[in-house]
Amino acid sequence: MNDQSRLDELRRLMLKKHIDVYLVVLSDYHSSENVVEAFQEIRWLSGFSGTNATIIVTQDDAGLWTDGRYFIQAKNQIKNSGIRLFPMGEEGVPDVYEYIDEHLKKGMTLGYDGRVVSLEDHERYKKLARGNGAGIKCRENLIDSLWTDRPQLPCSKVWILSDSFCGESVEDKLGRVSKLLQKRGADAILVSDLCDIAWLLNIRGNDIDYVPVALSFFYLGKNKRILYIDGKSLSDETRAYFEALDIEIHPYESVFSDIRRIRASRVMIDPLTVNAAIASGIPFWIRQIKRPSPITRLKAVKNKTEIKNTRLAHIKDGVAVTKFIYRIKTGIGIEDITECSAADILHDLRAKQEHFIDESFSTISAYGANAAMMHYEPDRNNDVKLQSKGFLLVDSGGHYFEGTTDITRTIVLGPLTPEEIHGFTLTLRGALRLMAARFPKGTLCQGLDVLARGPFWDEGLDYRCGTGHGVGHILSVHEGPNGFRSKITKKLKACPLLPGMITTDEPGLYEEGKFGVRIENELLCVSDRKTEYGSFLRFENITMAPIDLDAVDLSLLTEEEKNTLNEYHKRVYDTLLPFMDEDEAVWLRKATKAV
Amino acid sequence: MNDQSRLDELRRLMLKKHIDVYLVVLSDYHSSENVVEAFQEIRWLSGFSGTNATIIVTQDDAGLWTDGRYFIQAKNQIKNSGIRLFPMGEEGVPDVYEYIDEHLKKGMTLGYDGRVVSLEDHERYKKLARGNGAGIKCRENLIDSLWTDRPQLPCSKVWILSDSFCGESVEDKLGRVSKLLQKRGADAILVSDLCDIAWLLNIRGNDIDYVPVALSFFYLGKNKRILYIDGKSLSDETRAYFEALDIEIHPYESVFSDIRRIRASRVMIDPLTVNAAIASGIPFWIRQIKRPSPITRLKAVKNKTEIKNTRLAHIKDGVAVTKFIYRIKTGIGIEDITECSAADILHDLRAKQEHFIDESFSTISAYGANAAMMHYEPDRNNDVKLQSKGFLLVDSGGHYFEGTTDITRTIVLGPLTPEEIHGFTLTLRGALRLMAARFPKGTLCQGLDVLARGPFWDEGLDYRCGTGHGVGHILSVHEGPNGFRSKITKKLKACPLLPGMITTDEPGLYEEGKFGVRIENELLCVSDRKTEYGSFLRFENITMAPIDLDAVDLSLLTEEEKNTLNEYHKRVYDTLLPFMDEDEAVWLRKATKAV
Repeated sequence: MNDQSRLDELRRLMLKKHIDVYLVVLSDYHSSENVVEAFQEIRWLSGFSGTNATIIVTQDDAGLWTDGRYFIQAKNQIKNSGIRLFPMGEEGVPDVYEYIDEHLKKGMTLGYDGRVVSLEDHERYKKLARGNGAGIKCRENLIDSLWTDRPQLPCSKVWILSDSFCGESVEDKLGRVSKLLQKRGADAILVSDLCDIAWLLNIRGNDIDYVPVALSFFYLGKNKRILYIDGKSLSDETRAYFEALDIEIHPYESVFSDIRRIRASRVMIDPLTVNAAIASGIPFWIRQIKRPSPITRLKAVKNKTEIKNTRLAHIKDGVAVTKFIYRIKTGIGIEDITECSAADILHDLRAKQEHFIDESFSTISAYGANAAMMHYEPDRNNDVKLQSKGFLLVDSGGHYFEGTTDITRTIVLGPLTPEEIHGFTLTLRGALRLMAARFPKGTLCQGLDVLARGPFWDEGLDYRCGTGHGVGHILSVHEGPNGFRSKITKKLKACPLLPGMITTDEPGLYEEGKFGVRIENELLCVSDRKTEYGSFLRFENITMAPIDLDAVDLSLLTEEEKNTLNEYHKRVYDTLLPFMDEDEAVWLRKATKAV
Repeated sequence: MNDQSRLDELRRLMLKKHIDVYLVVLSDYHSSENVVEAFQEIRWLSGFSGTNATIIVTQDDAGLWTDGRYFIQAKNQIKNSGIRLFPMGEEGVPDVYEYIDEHLKKGMTLGYDGRVVSLEDHERYKKLARGNGAGIKCRENLIDSLWTDRPQLPCSKVWILSDSFCGESVEDKLGRVSKLLQKRGADAILVSDLCDIAWLLNIRGNDIDYVPVALSFFYLGKNKRILYIDGKSLSDETRAYFEALDIEIHPYESVFSDIRRIRASRVMIDPLTVNAAIASGIPFWIRQIKRPSPITRLKAVKNKTEIKNTRLAHIKDGVAVTKFIYRIKTGIGIEDITECSAADILHDLRAKQEHFIDESFSTISAYGANAAMMHYEPDRNNDVKLQSKGFLLVDSGGHYFEGTTDITRTIVLGPLTPEEIHGFTLTLRGALRLMAARFPKGTLCQGLDVLARGPFWDEGLDYRCGTGHGVGHILSVHEGPNGFRSKITKKLKACPLLPGMITTDEPGLYEEGKFGVRIENELLCVSDRKTEYGSFLRFENITMAPIDLDAVDLSLLTEEEKNTLNEYHKRVYDTLLPFMDEDEAVWLRKATKAV
């Protein structure tokens, strides 16, 4: 897109509808992180394709808010859209609420589609509007009438993940949830989060790219279980499966009308994922218990089967990634390799692994300065040839029937600048320090973040994103509530670490126009020991692939850091050796040698 | 006290008053940390003299809750009181609320004195009681009629701290507070925190041991300023001072009746420090804006004058402490020294310093195993002679007209066990790591805590208290909102670090029955540098006294830790040398030599 005609159309419609400030969010009915085509209003309006964005339009101004991962990308993509970038978190930049607060004057009206705005956000907007003497219109989507070729909602086939992969039956999970509801005084719950539903019902789908879930809502009442889903996504087998579980099937969108007739006295809803339209539909005589979904917390603590299987998934994934690194490092300068062909090579190696389902997100294969864009995607129409120098950063992952992976390796293709070596070494130090942490049960994720950032902060450097995120089990590769980060916000709450949680450890350095480095391992939280001071936990590295020693300035590593690195590399070597051919084995030995 | 007759009396009164669960808290009308004799109901009832405690009494059970600093002490002191210890935070130990929840059955009544319970706690109790179908009686203090020789409230003279020591006039401070009120939509504030009042009005008092404040409330309305204080504490000079500031003087306890007649439409109160009796007295048509006191946050960020002066106070304090360490280390084995006489020696050295006012808390002078009790106080009736072995832990501080100090040094008196050396070295490593931190503006205190605890956690060790606390300026030596800690609670909220905040760095190891180590410096948060990644901060060590190298296992220190230690010791030497006599100077040179 290269003009602002869509923005102009929207402004005309706003005038007609008497809406002064219009909000476009990147979300679906479930506050999903990955949003299907039908909900890509931000991209339609601005051209921006990142996974976190909000647009606010007034007659005089239009702004797009996104986070540090996307500043560079967004600046490029929205150049001609008439919309300007508000880089979130930078000094002096108002956030979405502050901006609305300033521009929504007395008597004005704020508009948005209540189906794609969470109850939490809706309540904040309502309060803000009330405080400013303004009104809200949230029952109409203005983009709808402008976006004439808007795609249909997807409707893929639902499939069942057997108990041998899940490790817990649906009845057991429903039982645990019911107990938690009872504890909180609720007699029903409406579940909106797609991953929560998939985990709870041991089902998976294919509606959303990279996240194997089905568009659905789930209602669990005292004697009522309803799955709201497009009937076309069900086979005879899955229909029978749900019937055996006493789960009724209702059409997906009927949740908006059904909610007006639910029979419960206290229904739990998660204000972060249940949308405003549903919440407003709950009859006023039913008490809403607004709490974070109890399912999200259950799901984050992996059970024994999930852990055992996830370890297997990581070995398979590590075999693919390690063979890939070998192929790239030995191929560079001899064969033509591009960002896209590298991603293809990696895809093929993953696809050869037994039980491979799909990638867990779009592979980031970024050469040189492109890697400074944290969430860069290679472009087949504008592919970049790799040269025998600098870094190739590859952030990728796979879904296997055993589990989901997420790994980043920054691969040395040839000579490096001193800055690149320094940046890589800092990143490695940060990653190693976090990996080696030991801490009492219940320590907050936020309390460990400094371990990864410390080496950066010491030099006035930082990375503008979290240090790591929870990883789902054949679900979203980004999952809460765990995650290493320095901030505490309403969405990123303080989260105590528990054994069974899996979190990525992925510091990085992103020098705009120069290079990007990231090293990402997944860490499984496990018991360490019990002492008179409490139960102590540590991390088990479950990611299995060498970290490129060619970029490390060993003189900067402490003894502790060297030990952590050597221990890790020894495990990588021992684990992967059986899967390597002769040449790969020779190379792997060197690539994992003790430093 | 050596029997449970007082507990029995209380139980009889509870029966008479139809109170099933009675709560005794260690607090005054202001939720002060240091509580005057008149409010020491916990000590009267149980014998426990620590600074954090709650007692719950039923007909069948009685429990005392306190935190990890006091487990050992409390166990000893309440032995024969009929009350059992609930060690807070230990696994499986219910907290006060959980305990009440379990024991307060339908139809029962919970009782406490609403004047000594904060609004925040009161609201929680109310909710809990309502949920359990129980009632609350909070207008009567049952201890009152039993404690016949209860002391009077103190009434010391108020004095004025001149602008040259404060760095900001009262009018300027009131102006800043009024702006913050306006921003939050409030037209009045009732200030209950005694340190907030003293800071705001540039006054000090002498009502509470070690905390130079006056028992008072302050009301700031649009055209109304009222100080509630015992008139006997005012001289002609201070009366004139308040008159010049347009501040009316009302009797202290009249706040409870005045509050029913205030003229405001939206009054701000801090639910953590305003008590339930006051909050309940506010007429229902006045909106209560319940927020943390804006004054607490203003006060925590020291101004240039306070900083300059505090540095001076620390030099004087460091001179006293360093001369003390020299005296102890050279005197031990030659002269008789006891825990109490050591504290006296230190007191005399401090008292010799210009502008010394008082100690900032009761000196902890703890030899050997006594130091395992974090808040041990030496006892003149049971004084302990120091021997030429092990550690003497001395935690002490002073108020000077320039500022307040808090310092702990653990002094080597002779041969040490390997365990003692190891514990000291771990503690030193923790302290040094936190000292050396650099971090972006706004980093949470909670995010840095792991730096101090990491060396402990690596070995399954820990200390059962925060790593550090904010320090007031000629006010309470414990002040919020800053403080290094690993937890986030309602009282210990997530607090971003700002330049001008002063926080202690005081890890320690406490091995019951064996020894205790603590090293405590105060860290002033200062600007480090601005980079494209943000404004970075670091700490300036303002405490000036050598750390005993005789207890350090140098082989365990990293190069970074050694550098931090050496830099610190060089500054200590350069700063203190001019104040040392010849022998002390020779010793100080060795005591601060680079390692």
